[in-house]
Amino acid sequence: MSAVYGGVEGGGTHSKAVLVSAEGHILAETDGPCTNHWLVGVDNCINGINDMVQRAKIKAGLDPDTPVCSLGMSLSGGEQKAAIQKLIDDMRERYPKLSQSYFITTDAIGAMATASDYGGIVVISGTGSNCKLVNPDGTQVGCGGWGHMMGDEGSAYWISHLAIKTVFDARDNLVTSPHDINYVKKAMEEYFQVSDLMGMLPHLYRIFQKSHFAGFCRKLAEGGSAGDALCQHVFTEAGKALARHIVAVLPRVHQDLFSGELGLPVLCVGSVWRSWELMKSGYMTG
Amino acid sequence: MSAVYGGVEGGGTHSKAVLVSAEGHILAETDGPCTNHWLVGVDNCINGINDMVQRAKIKAGLDPDTPVCSLGMSLSGGEQKAAIQKLIDDMRERYPKLSQSYFITTDAIGAMATASDYGGIVVISGTGSNCKLVNPDGTQVGCGGWGHMMGDEGSAYWISHLAIKTVFDARDNLVTSPHDINYVKKAMEEYFQVSDLMGMLPHLYRIFQKSHFAGFCRKLAEGGSAGDALCQHVFTEAGKALARHIVAVLPRVHQDLFSGELGLPVLCVGSVWRSWELMKSGYMTG
Repeated sequence: MSAVYGGVEGGGTHSKAVLVSAEGHILAETDGPCTNHWLVGVDNCINGINDMVQRAKIKAGLDPDTPVCSLGMSLSGGEQKAAIQKLIDDMRERYPKLSQSYFITTDAIGAMATASDYGGIVVISGTGSNCKLVNPDGTQVGCGGWGHMMGDEGSAYWISHLAIKTVFDARDNLVTSPHDINYVKKAMEEYFQVSDLMGMLPHLYRIFQKSHFAGFCRKLAEGGSAGDALCQHVFTEAGKALARHIVAVLPRVHQDLFSGELGLPVLCVGSVWRSWELMKSGYMTG
Repeated sequence: MSAVYGGVEGGGTHSKAVLVSAEGHILAETDGPCTNHWLVGVDNCINGINDMVQRAKIKAGLDPDTPVCSLGMSLSGGEQKAAIQKLIDDMRERYPKLSQSYFITTDAIGAMATASDYGGIVVISGTGSNCKLVNPDGTQVGCGGWGHMMGDEGSAYWISHLAIKTVFDARDNLVTSPHDINYVKKAMEEYFQVSDLMGMLPHLYRIFQKSHFAGFCRKLAEGGSAGDALCQHVFTEAGKALARHIVAVLPRVHQDLFSGELGLPVLCVGSVWRSWELMKSGYMTG
């Protein structure tokens, strides 16, 4: 086949693959599941990537046994050097027909490269969250992006967790909720199909799936739009938390980045930003 | 054999089994690993229990093929009715030679039963944390005990996490640490055998083990005793958090429990209490 290039955008819940011709035409696109190797493991990650790209080859009428020229991937969780190298080594060994060469970077850097070749700040809030400053000289400064065990502030996971923790703490009389918990409690029982707090334990441990847990955030967004004060509160807190990520990298922003027509470019990526109206007030105070 | 009774005390890091004769004499004791089924799964939990009890039978010179009369277990994580019933059903099916009958309660209730037949408040802080009020009429009121994903405030896991999160947030410029982070950062790198924060990711996800993570708390206790301010700070916060659990159940304490010679009985269980000197000031303000 003539030169074909592949690209993968990997998220904590969904992923996408695309094949592009040497002339820059899109030949095929496919969807797939979470490809964050910290969440699903290396095996599921590279299986998912291979499956998406191979399906795209067939969809484009290409021979699936012919490797693409190169496969560029911007992956949620694609940061740690040793881990990335292992992903590439495993793909080479396991799927020699996938691609001739490989490149992996984080979802944050991938998004920034799409929007600007000059730099700026990218703030991701999807299943997880992350913030990266890219300066015009290419240097990067990060804040967050450590996953749900050590951060993810302002992400869908974090918003879901904050709302549910508020219900647990109110039930325990440990912390008083700032607002009535009934809407969130009922939405939680419906979404997770449980009848009490005890029923949440499997969802937190044995059958915990970050993307499913984070998906509860959509119900909270609905509640917030419908006027529930606790739902609105957790999104306001998310806005604050994400703004604090930007504030954290501000001291390292190169002077030149402020001189654009619209000032410092801040790129907001991820599905949580669809609830911007609910987050705005918190974001402004953060 | 003449009537032999078994008991198991199950923790989030270690467990113990004991065999007792009808006359109340201890026949044998054995140790084992974590038997919290939320942490290690049902299979490892019941395998661990069976292994400890069978070893105890052999140690006591008893026939391992003869079931004990009954096996009473007070288990970390032994709360949810459906989950407990599954543990018992699985033990019956898998290990018919283990015991004739079974009883499971939580570690908190087990500890309280050991100390008093009248009731009081038990506050556990070991690998995880939990608080239970037992009133003289047998009614129970809980606070916490939801595990590391939804609580565990004041536990060894929580103390370790707070210290490490403080290092991450300081590195990210996200939150300023109240004290110098160098001691904790170095202790973390030594304990987890990592050279930077990225190296912590496997310990938080792929190879995460709650009991190993919580074990870092011991290094923080050493640092606190040696005068490191950040180590002292996280224990002070733990003291506050545990005191808040007691405050949370206070409104439900039966009047009679205050009338003992020493006032309300508060039973403190778990290895974190060994650092009482470090927690005292926080506990008093909490």
